[in-house]
Amino acid sequence: MINIALLGFGTVGSGVAEVFSENRDLIRSRTGFDFNIKYILDLREFPDHPLGSRVVHDFNIILNDPEISIVAEMMGGLHPAYDFSMAALKAGKNVVTSNKAVVAAFGPELLREAADRGVRYLFEASVGGGIPIIRSLTELAAGNDIFEIAGILNGTTNYILTMMFKNGLSFADALASAQALGYAEADPSADVDGFDTCRKICILTAVAYGTLIPFEKVETIGIRDITAEDIRAAEAQGCSVKLIARAVRTPDGIYLKTEPMAVRKTNPLYAIEDVFNGILIRGNVSGDLMFFGKGAGKLPTAGAVVSDILDIPARADSQPHRQLWVRDESAYVPELPKELLDRSLEELGIPLGKKARC
Amino acid sequence: MINIALLGFGTVGSGVAEVFSENRDLIRSRTGFDFNIKYILDLREFPDHPLGSRVVHDFNIILNDPEISIVAEMMGGLHPAYDFSMAALKAGKNVVTSNKAVVAAFGPELLREAADRGVRYLFEASVGGGIPIIRSLTELAAGNDIFEIAGILNGTTNYILTMMFKNGLSFADALASAQALGYAEADPSADVDGFDTCRKICILTAVAYGTLIPFEKVETIGIRDITAEDIRAAEAQGCSVKLIARAVRTPDGIYLKTEPMAVRKTNPLYAIEDVFNGILIRGNVSGDLMFFGKGAGKLPTAGAVVSDILDIPARADSQPHRQLWVRDESAYVPELPKELLDRSLEELGIPLGKKARC
Repeated sequence: MINIALLGFGTVGSGVAEVFSENRDLIRSRTGFDFNIKYILDLREFPDHPLGSRVVHDFNIILNDPEISIVAEMMGGLHPAYDFSMAALKAGKNVVTSNKAVVAAFGPELLREAADRGVRYLFEASVGGGIPIIRSLTELAAGNDIFEIAGILNGTTNYILTMMFKNGLSFADALASAQALGYAEADPSADVDGFDTCRKICILTAVAYGTLIPFEKVETIGIRDITAEDIRAAEAQGCSVKLIARAVRTPDGIYLKTEPMAVRKTNPLYAIEDVFNGILIRGNVSGDLMFFGKGAGKLPTAGAVVSDILDIPARADSQPHRQLWVRDESAYVPELPKELLDRSLEELGIPLGKKARC
Repeated sequence: MINIALLGFGTVGSGVAEVFSENRDLIRSRTGFDFNIKYILDLREFPDHPLGSRVVHDFNIILNDPEISIVAEMMGGLHPAYDFSMAALKAGKNVVTSNKAVVAAFGPELLREAADRGVRYLFEASVGGGIPIIRSLTELAAGNDIFEIAGILNGTTNYILTMMFKNGLSFADALASAQALGYAEADPSADVDGFDTCRKICILTAVAYGTLIPFEKVETIGIRDITAEDIRAAEAQGCSVKLIARAVRTPDGIYLKTEPMAVRKTNPLYAIEDVFNGILIRGNVSGDLMFFGKGAGKLPTAGAVVSDILDIPARADSQPHRQLWVRDESAYVPELPKELLDRSLEELGIPLGKKARC
């Protein structure tokens, strides 16, 4: 029996409980292990939930219980999520997370601490929801010179752009539709201004190259200024407008940017619609690979957390392609060299929009 | 230093040597290991190749060398590829392979032997070329109830169908074009009659469910009888013709089939063109996921072999979600239940073509 603790019982946390409950027999038969959610840390009580009696409000109960070998952090926000994660690692517990803010801000420290303690810090759910992109990219990067990553990493903005493209809505009306469906927050800034996407491409870049570029440095343009006319003009050129995050390895470092682009019909990202995410990876050995799936939502994201949890006992005492990241803003290249820009315009499409920073 | 032996120095084997040579520094820095190709088993000599001196003609040299911990089998054909693989496992060596024929025929025995000896038998390169589908599906299947796998698994037939669709060629002319480009063999039967695809879907099914259905049982229809008129009729309905392999979990077992289908524009497999492969996986937790990339070719396939090789020292003494397959023809369901058929016609498309068996 492997005892785990969930930190946060919102959408993702309750989804993790649901996956372990729904797929209990399958998980036992496929992994050979039983998993028990021993504690749920949340400020609230959940008296009507079958696991309501597992709720605790003091993190020290989890930290001091030697039976807890895995902590799943799904609280959101930097603090106390980071502090609890670091404390759990220092106590020799494995930590998995869906919290991209923490990974993008403190990945180097958390991965180093995990390595020093002989435990693991895993974050499959931080990018791409149910798409197994972190694990795939980790393994691809081991033997493959990856020269470009380009992706649609935010389902909310892709839904808005799809509504504008397909139904001719204005940005404001498409945003209202996304909010009505629960895809966008009341304050949509993290999504529509590209900050969420920016953090995700910084994480993917760190996975591919071992270098975390501080997200505050990275030029990021959101979709707030995209008009119905921009969409029609792109369509007239055989393109669809997408919020594209890109990382390109250049001779001087890593070019990184998030910006709306008119993507050509010949590029596989053209057809990614609604709340789906798509991630294109180009390597010198693999050629072009694309991963496509639900980038958000309760069960896909919870499933990614669960896959990290299941991976821990399966690989006890091993550290496949251990991640250790260096934070290095000097590796940041703000402009693409001309020959790479020309190739990119040919293969991907045309940048749109105005400047902002995340 | 990790010493490896390559069995077979054709397209894939020489590609593996090229990847280790081209990406040597990257592999050392990402994995922490140096890999040395100590032997190459082939009937031929390669006096002009930098590794020409490593060529041997007697497998026993490899088998009896305790320095060899990893054997990469890329010979093709069932024998002696199977026999050499089994002998290597029995000698306590890890085996990786690109040989789908061996995996589809003898997977249960080879995986069992590897488990009993505490070594690994890996076969990422057997399906989907450079797409990391075996590893992704293995991990997805651990916590996710997978109810359908549908894919374009053969680049040669997809190239032929793309030529017919885009350029209006007949089957015969499109096949001749594929042969001229080296995409199809002089005897194209394994590709165009669907036998290659059939073996690959049997492997994916075994990865997902642990049950290997003997490929001889599985209904398989190739593309030889597809006419330009079939392509035009599909196009008139907003579809493109693809050779689709499918596995669907039903209450009575596993439905499996390879057949040409008119795939709807709304399905992500619609847009997979040329020699690319695409694999759609539907799970109760992950939702729909698609993986897309070069399904064949020297470097993508060699890269998949290399990724398996790199994985072995990284996970010494661990067996992530160990595969053990049962061969079970009674699990085979030859017809889809009506409600699943209706859903499938809605979401995927319409089957075409005449019957055959692989």
